[in-house]
Amino acid sequence: MGEFELIRRHFQRAGVAQPGNVVLGVGDDCALLQPAPGHQLAISTDMLVEGRHFFADVDPEALGHKALAVNLSDLAAMGARPLGCTLALSLPRADDAWLAAFARGLFALADAHACPLVGGDTTRGPLNLCITVFGELRPGQASRRDAAQVGDDIYVSGRTGEARLALEWLLGTPWARAAVGPELPADLRARLERPTPRLALGQALAGVAHAALDLSDGLTGDLGHILAASGVGADIALADLPVAPVLAALPDAERQTCLLSGGDDYELLFTAPVSARAAVQAAAQASGTAVARIGTVSAAPGLRLLDASGEAVAFRAKSFDHFG
Amino acid sequence: MGEFELIRRHFQRAGVAQPGNVVLGVGDDCALLQPAPGHQLAISTDMLVEGRHFFADVDPEALGHKALAVNLSDLAAMGARPLGCTLALSLPRADDAWLAAFARGLFALADAHACPLVGGDTTRGPLNLCITVFGELRPGQASRRDAAQVGDDIYVSGRTGEARLALEWLLGTPWARAAVGPELPADLRARLERPTPRLALGQALAGVAHAALDLSDGLTGDLGHILAASGVGADIALADLPVAPVLAALPDAERQTCLLSGGDDYELLFTAPVSARAAVQAAAQASGTAVARIGTVSAAPGLRLLDASGEAVAFRAKSFDHFG
Repeated sequence: MGEFELIRRHFQRAGVAQPGNVVLGVGDDCALLQPAPGHQLAISTDMLVEGRHFFADVDPEALGHKALAVNLSDLAAMGARPLGCTLALSLPRADDAWLAAFARGLFALADAHACPLVGGDTTRGPLNLCITVFGELRPGQASRRDAAQVGDDIYVSGRTGEARLALEWLLGTPWARAAVGPELPADLRARLERPTPRLALGQALAGVAHAALDLSDGLTGDLGHILAASGVGADIALADLPVAPVLAALPDAERQTCLLSGGDDYELLFTAPVSARAAVQAAAQASGTAVARIGTVSAAPGLRLLDASGEAVAFRAKSFDHFG
Repeated sequence: MGEFELIRRHFQRAGVAQPGNVVLGVGDDCALLQPAPGHQLAISTDMLVEGRHFFADVDPEALGHKALAVNLSDLAAMGARPLGCTLALSLPRADDAWLAAFARGLFALADAHACPLVGGDTTRGPLNLCITVFGELRPGQASRRDAAQVGDDIYVSGRTGEARLALEWLLGTPWARAAVGPELPADLRARLERPTPRLALGQALAGVAHAALDLSDGLTGDLGHILAASGVGADIALADLPVAPVLAALPDAERQTCLLSGGDDYELLFTAPVSARAAVQAAAQASGTAVARIGTVSAAPGLRLLDASGEAVAFRAKSFDHFG
């Protein structure tokens, strides 16, 4: 199978209707898209490398899902609506079954969010996936990292920590094996391998939230980006963090690691003014996504974690760093 | 140096003015761009892998140039004006001097074409560069591969074959060493390592050319894409192909290989109606880019190479295939 046949067989989908704003899809020098009049373009790119972001034996269908999901999650954080994506792929060999499964996972998520694959590149080399996504949103509606204001509530969607627990289980870490048991439940594995990009919530929060981002490196580390960009501090009430039942079985230190510096959560972390509490709940309801209020933006610099009695708790703010 | 410090030091440029259509650049979940009203968006992505697209010891400044140039070349082929680009980078280690040189090469070309770096991703792994570019153009002005018409003239910009000759010299191929000599001249090396994206020509041809593409895999192979997409054939007059002086010293077979299936030329190959000959020359002059008329689009399927007496010449249409 040559390069063009590989693309034709797995990534060009004759007969699948394209959204109306796709003027030209896979197969030319460029794709052509027609954004809605007056809208801005939101763009994000993520590169996934074997051994860093996934294991060599990962289910290729799950990998196809995740490679797109982590990008869509960035559009969600901004409040943008997906327009399309490109895929650049470096492969050690052209493995037909692997590619078919990968494409199935990718297209299932792409179709669910009307985010057509409009272009790409294929080469031989160490396994590497680079997806770039494009979305659109109205000027002034983006939820930026630098927009948190003193007095804002801080919210998180869904729950954090399960992806980290699943990762530690796969790595054979004793505390993870002890808490989870000898088998990794499918729903826990899915939290690591098939994250859900919170697109509907992100769009519902456009114009409601002040600052937002998606959690990829851990709650405290990522919140730190908002605080730094906005020049503010924050108080987080530990007791208000949503905790999955499977995390309840963990020792305190490991549970806190999962909740606060877990990584790979792909939940939205955002701030909104107190006056918008009803609007935030309406956005959560409209998008079918649970949202928890977990703290407050303060003028005092730094991030404080408070226990149930309001006392500051010591913690190591640690987040993933590829070159740390 | 951590991941965020690496990005800050080498890829965020405080104090460098951004074009007005960049609403938000490097540092948030997404970049935000504001395309011109009514314009379409052109998108292309290319991935460069060590050992496939460049040698491990390549000058990093040249690599920064080339990684962006091959993408801008796709915008040029479409007739689009650059809006911005993203860079995803997998690096075996954070080498400060290497990154500084790479960024210098990238930004020099980006600045020359008002194509700001608006976002990216950095990870540790085998060296891999994935750039995605965005451009804009007026609806209906794109030069697509499927738009060649019977009777069109066929043109090529600049000259083909020098990049291939430089590559063969670097690989130590005897006929290349014999023709070039013991030293690789800087201008010949530059044809391989610092290709010139033909953006001004591409934009000047928008609405003038019918079909166009940029030559990355060799003239005959790439022309084959236009013929297949447009459902036409072509006759190419070999004597009309521009030949660099350094290629004149090659034996016939090797010269033909370089000219016709060289690869890495990044010249524009395009078709235009006979009625547009003056307009094509005006576009060439306005953009300061030489253009040669080398053949004709025909209704008879297939590609024929004709010698000076109009006789068909045998050749192997061979173009680069990563999985061939």
